Parts: sequence; structure tokens; C-alpha cells
Amino acid sequence: MKVFITGGAGFIGSQMAEKFLKRGDSVTCFDNLILGKKEFLKNCGSLVATGATFQFIQEDLLNLDRVIAAMKGHDLVVHLAANSDISQGVEKSDVDLKNGTIATFNTLEAMRKSGVRDILFASTSAIYGEASVKPTPENYGPLIPISFYGASKLGCEGLVSAFAHNCGLRAVTFRFANIVGPRSTHGAIHDFTERLLKDPKVLKVLGNGTQAKSYLHVEDCIEGMLHALDRVLLPAAGPDFYECFNLASLGVSNVKFLAETVAREFSKARGIPVPVLEFGESSRGWVGDVAYTWLDGSRFEKHGWKARLESGAAVERAVREIISEKLA
Amino acid sequence: MKVFITGGAGFIGSQMAEKFLKRGDSVTCFDNLILGKKEFLKNCGSLVATGATFQFIQEDLLNLDRVIAAMKGHDLVVHLAANSDISQGVEKSDVDLKNGTIATFNTLEAMRKSGVRDILFASTSAIYGEASVKPTPENYGPLIPISFYGASKLGCEGLVSAFAHNCGLRAVTFRFANIVGPRSTHGAIHDFTERLLKDPKVLKVLGNGTQAKSYLHVEDCIEGMLHALDRVLLPAAGPDFYECFNLASLGVSNVKFLAETVAREFSKARGIPVPVLEFGESSRGWVGDVAYTWLDGSRFEKHGWKARLESGAAVERAVREIISEKLA
Repeated sequence: MKVFITGGAGFIGSQMAEKFLKRGDSVTCFDNLILGKKEFLKNCGSLVATGATFQFIQEDLLNLDRVIAAMKGHDLVVHLAANSDISQGVEKSDVDLKNGTIATFNTLEAMRKSGVRDILFASTSAIYGEASVKPTPENYGPLIPISFYGASKLGCEGLVSAFAHNCGLRAVTFRFANIVGPRSTHGAIHDFTERLLKDPKVLKVLGNGTQAKSYLHVEDCIEGMLHALDRVLLPAAGPDFYECFNLASLGVSNVKFLAETVAREFSKARGIPVPVLEFGESSRGWVGDVAYTWLDGSRFEKHGWKARLESGAAVERAVREIISEKLA
Repeated sequence: MKVFITGGAGFIGSQMAEKFLKRGDSVTCFDNLILGKKEFLKNCGSLVATGATFQFIQEDLLNLDRVIAAMKGHDLVVHLAANSDISQGVEKSDVDLKNGTIATFNTLEAMRKSGVRDILFASTSAIYGEASVKPTPENYGPLIPISFYGASKLGCEGLVSAFAHNCGLRAVTFRFANIVGPRSTHGAIHDFTERLLKDPKVLKVLGNGTQAKSYLHVEDCIEGMLHALDRVLLPAAGPDFYECFNLASLGVSNVKFLAETVAREFSKARGIPVPVLEFGESSRGWVGDVAYTWLDGSRFEKHGWKARLESGAAVERAVREIISEKLA
């Protein structure tokens, strides 16, 4: 299978590329390198199976003609590219419109024009906004996102389903929990570790630490998406197939737990006293942050998949991986 | 109150403008005249109350700087502008992205930059796609629109809620039923009448006539939105206020009923034999058409409003109005 990964040099995309290459598939990583890093692809060359290929294309999804040209001949699009740094200021309100909604439109339009039928699309729990039902199932409504990121992903979900219906695509949308693990380019664990590298004595935490989210390890995330590819998308009678799953682990973890885990593991790794934690007063990290998200992953589990790591275990493993990466 | 109406020279916008002027408010109609018509505003000048003003600005929402400049000094935005002709082909897949999503982003961005706080936003039942629950309530999910129009409006809803939360706006979103009445620029009644003007003997109907939708008369639509303005939006404690209502009448009407009503009223008005109806075979009018939509309007009715005309009565009145308009 020839796989086209948008955001292919990113946190999740680069690890997804390795996984497909190990399966024997050909992979094209398409990335503008704004958040992605070329060094994340350094293992890919050695993983190419006989008869398979790997290529990296540095290009922006906003250049539709380039996307169409690059996409020709592929069988599957894994659309991960987005502005994944959700905590941007109000002044940058159009970042998600451009790099989320319009980039996704171009991805789908390129599929239509280049004749690629299948897509796995990364959406987010942020589309639920401050849901009144927890854990939140896929059929929760109304969807009232409070961040520009969530708003954009909601629009993208609509685009994916409209293209599936009007252009004969087959699509699975995944509403991601917070994905953690090596190569993170943002997020609380990443930020906490960066702060400790600057000042290893004190760890300042945005908000009062009570904010809690579902955390999913990137390895589970990728395996979940591949499970959906093999068991749901490829066997689909389609065209005009659309399915939507929450992709989550069991439970939630709060920011206090993340901060304590980072502080403890950092002190172990460096052989220094455990940093002192200083919390803020707000129950939100930033405007647009949903203070408490808890995803109901049971719908996808009925298709025979379950995250290997619960939320807390995913956090603990990711903290160790990220610290060891940053101290390397 | 100074009201800024996008799509202000359109089917609903121009009648909304008259209503506000009659209340004594000042009105600015902003319209690119692609679907709107300047003649729809011919009554507005004579309706301006003492101390109030009326102006028309021919401009496109895609020119953000112009929108910001035009919007300054207003108190309320009524955002009706959209590509309301939902039955466009796949080749025009970006029409709704531009004239729906990006135009809505610009409207909201202009509010933020010009300091206008309140917005009434016209969304659509098309965001529900082929809902399995009927009548469909606001908390139905998952939202899987099957048209580019529905996809775009879903993205717009997300933008409205994200701007409300991040920029202190107060917003009410209305998920419109099919709005019918004088000045329609599209839709089945409009199309049927146009066809009879060309050939008064035979009326050809797309699809088999079983497609059914909730129809709401434009007068009820406008009164519903003003009711929400007075009873929900203006009393809101806000900022960061977001509310979402289905705006519908009681019941549904099918295309066969619409066609029969148009044929009967056309023959009466012209004094000719009743045209013969010819139906197609598909249960859908076009790709992306939801064959059966039935909106649950009870949530908004709890705020003390109810459409005066049921779906069937709204259709009958609109048919008479549209035929008399076209024969005038």
C-alpha cells in the first residue's frame, strides 16, 4: 500500500511512517516543517522493505497544486497535519482556519482530483467543548468547541464527511485524546520538561493543577488507527463510507499528576532534589482550554481494540521518554 | 440599536432589514449582490424612523478590511450571508468553504476588531446529515453532514462558539428549517414556478417526490430570531454567551405536496388547466440532499416562541406569494 502522510515529519506522523514502513508499505511524508522535524525521519530510510519506497516532501498543504501532484498514485491518506499547538493567543485566530480547515479542504480536494479514495483523519476531543456528559461518547451534542483549534477540527470533520458522501471517499475520523510520547513538540509534559531544563529547582504550573484529560500514548494511538484501517476502513463496502471514533485510553490524569511525575522523573534522571511545584489559581490553563475532558472510548473498543496503557501509565511512560530524549 | 446584516439584500436579510427599521433601529445591509438583489431593499428608505439610519454597502465578506471598516459602530450583527443554493455540483466544492466558512470567519474577526459584541447566526438543519433521530433535537450527534453546505455551516458554528468564548462575544445560532416565502432566490417552490413559466403544461420534479423537510415561513423565521434577540441574547449575562436553537415549524411537507400546491396555484393564477406532474425515480433530489429532515423545535419553544404557520401552511402561503411575485 502507498501511504501519504500529511504532517509526516511531526510527532505522530513520523512514528506512523515508521510503522507503515515496517509493515512493508511505501510511505510519502508531506510536511512544511513548521512543527515537524526532518530528524524525526532519520530511521525511515533503513526501514524500507523490498519493493517499497520512502520519500519526504517539504511543502505546505496550502499549495493545492503541489498537494495534488504529490498525492497522485497513493492508496491512503493519513491526515495528521494541523496546528497542534492549541494554546495560541486570540491574535492568531486565523492560524487554525488556514492550517486546519483550509489545509484539510486542500487535502480532500487533492484526493478527489488525484483519485485517492481512503483517508484516516485526526480530529480531537476539543470539538466537544465543555461537555456535560463524561465520559463523552461520539454521539454527544451539541458540539460547542471553545478553542479555535476545536472549531477548526469540527469544520474539518464536516468536510471529511461531505467529501466522503459527494466524492466517493472512505473515511475514518478519530477524535484524539491528548496524545503523549517521544517526539512531542508541545503539550504539558513537553513544557514542564523545558521549564525544568531552564530552572531545575522550581516547576511553575499554569492553572491550579486540577485540569484533567484523557492521555493516550502515541504508540497506542498509532496502533488504534492501524486497527481501524485494517478492520473498519479497508473492509468497508464503500464508497461513501464515513465512521467516527473517540480514540482514548481508560481514565483521566490531572495536571498535578503530570507535574509531579515530570518533577520526580527529572530529579531521578539528573540526580538532583525533586523540584518544588508552584501552581497558579485558575482552573484553566489558558483561554480555550477545556478544564476537564474524559473520552468514552467504548465504541471503538467494540471493534476489538483497546489501548494497552491507561491514562496514568501513558503519562508516566511518556514523561520518562520525553525527559530521556531531552537530556540525551 | 444599530444592526449590521450580512446578506442584507437577500431573501431573508432584506425582510429582516425592514423588520428592524419598523422597530426604529438603524440598519446597514452588507451584500455582494451575488444572490441578493438591490430591488429587495426598495422599501427600506421609507421605513427609517426618526433618528435612525439605513445604508446599503455592496461589498464581499472576503474583503476583511472592508468588513471591519463597515462594521464599526454597530451593536448587533445578523449573519445571514452564505451560498444558500445548496444543490451545487461537486466541481464547486470550494464555494461553501469561501462564501460560508471564510466569510463567517471574517464576519467574526471583524466583530472582534471593531468591538461589536452580539451576533445572531443562521446555521442549518443540513449539519445533522441523515439523522437517525426524528424529529431531530439540538443535542443530536454525531453530526455527519452530507453536503458541502452543511459541512461549512458546521465549521461556522464552531467558529461562532470559539469566538464567543475567546473574544467575549454573545451569540445565538439558529439551525434553520427550509425557509420559504416571498423573495426566495432558490429552493423547490422557486424552481417549480420557474419551470412552469417556461412550460405551463408539465411540471418535472427531481426525485420521486417522497423527500420531506420542515418548512418555515420567512416571516416566522424573522420573528423567531427577533424573539431570541429580545428574550435570550440581550438579557444574557455574557460575555462568552453561546446558545443554539433549531428554528422550525410543526411537521414536515414532502416534495409531492409542494409540486401539487405549485401546480394548483399556478393554474388558478393563470386560469389554465392544472399542469401534469412528472416525477423522477430517486428518493433524493441531488447528491448531498438529505431526503428527510424533521427538526425538533421544542427547545426554543420553551423560551415562549412558536411558529404561527405549520410546515404545510407555510408551504401553501409561500407558493401563493412566490407565484404572485413571479407573475407580477
